[in-house]
Amino acid sequence: MLTLFHHPFCPHSRFARLALAEFDLDADLAEERVWERREDFLILNPAGQTPVLIAEGFPAVPGPNVIAEFLSEMHGSLADGISDRNLIGTDPQQRVEVRRLMAWFAEKFATEVSTPLVNERLHKRFMTPDQGGGPPDTDVMRAARKNVRYHLAYIDWMAAQRDWLAGNSLTFADLAAAAHLSVVDYLGDIPWGESEHAKSWYARMKSRPSFRAILADVSGALPPAPHYANPDF
Amino acid sequence: MLTLFHHPFCPHSRFARLALAEFDLDADLAEERVWERREDFLILNPAGQTPVLIAEGFPAVPGPNVIAEFLSEMHGSLADGISDRNLIGTDPQQRVEVRRLMAWFAEKFATEVSTPLVNERLHKRFMTPDQGGGPPDTDVMRAARKNVRYHLAYIDWMAAQRDWLAGNSLTFADLAAAAHLSVVDYLGDIPWGESEHAKSWYARMKSRPSFRAILADVSGALPPAPHYANPDF
Repeated sequence: MLTLFHHPFCPHSRFARLALAEFDLDADLAEERVWERREDFLILNPAGQTPVLIAEGFPAVPGPNVIAEFLSEMHGSLADGISDRNLIGTDPQQRVEVRRLMAWFAEKFATEVSTPLVNERLHKRFMTPDQGGGPPDTDVMRAARKNVRYHLAYIDWMAAQRDWLAGNSLTFADLAAAAHLSVVDYLGDIPWGESEHAKSWYARMKSRPSFRAILADVSGALPPAPHYANPDF
Repeated sequence: MLTLFHHPFCPHSRFARLALAEFDLDADLAEERVWERREDFLILNPAGQTPVLIAEGFPAVPGPNVIAEFLSEMHGSLADGISDRNLIGTDPQQRVEVRRLMAWFAEKFATEVSTPLVNERLHKRFMTPDQGGGPPDTDVMRAARKNVRYHLAYIDWMAAQRDWLAGNSLTFADLAAAAHLSVVDYLGDIPWGESEHAKSWYARMKSRPSFRAILADVSGALPPAPHYANPDF
């Protein structure tokens, strides 16, 4: 029995949902608005951030990359015949690259692109002034939209050289990247026209069964960009 | 043959140095001033941050936590008789806690305390105005010094319950925490008086042979706090 505390537009949560789905693991989803700083949630994760995975017999597993490592280890130990798909790589070289890119998206892309855009355009609508709510800061949005271009160019460069972002098989690197891109794409803030290889890679990601639930997420406050759920965009 | 690109007052680099020393691994140290954005360094690590570990036969290993996982895997595979000291924990529960705390210090403590204090008080002296140099921002310093109190209280709470921060044995969690604290302690910005258990844990960390090189690091621009290198402080 698994429960994931998440938010539908938290990119880190989307990464965890993709990872669970790729391992064919069902989890109950509990929506958490972290800006409310709910006391019971802070006990689960003193860092106060989504996602947090609750698995019976284990302490709360907080944070996208800790969840990924945990799933990979537990999945590997299941010996269920798909252990070559541990999603973290089969040799140390590949694991370095997968973990490098997991950190890249969890820290760099999140700070420079996905977190500011989602905060300004979506989450602030639901926050009280005390919680940081209010009208979007256009300077912050402009900076994030500028940053997305160099990140997209980097993804494009990787996608041109390799089948998947970290090598020849699907890994957490692809899931993390696609999760972060997906929230920005929902907002219509990805200039796809510039990046043929990144676009083709992302189209493959969108076509995966693990992506279905994420493409069905819709915010009542802001509809998705028209192409958001379309694998041919 | 190992080379670590680092900076003596980068807390993430100090964590990597402590990890190398705990595994009895010698590495050449190459000082990198990341704010100069040296092109050859950006090729090694497009994220432009220290530390980066270079190990023969491997791609560059960038980032404190990727280095830690890499060392743990390589160390484990050496079967050199100390595999119970892989520093990342021996069961999934402990590894969750170790990785949670590695992320806590790499992301939360760094953002809220160590990075702003080191930047304002030390690194800005060496930067040109274009690189972000200039006089320290006292608002930023005040916020970081306020934040250090709740972090120290949290470390104190953990140290009161357990022999080491993530359980009953030394792990990367202790090395990460001590690395980040050490740069703040150099600056004299840790109010030790409030936290008996944290202080006693940090005294044990300072007494470890792995800590010696770090306690010997001195900046010509700013001398250490008087108690910095003293295990009885």
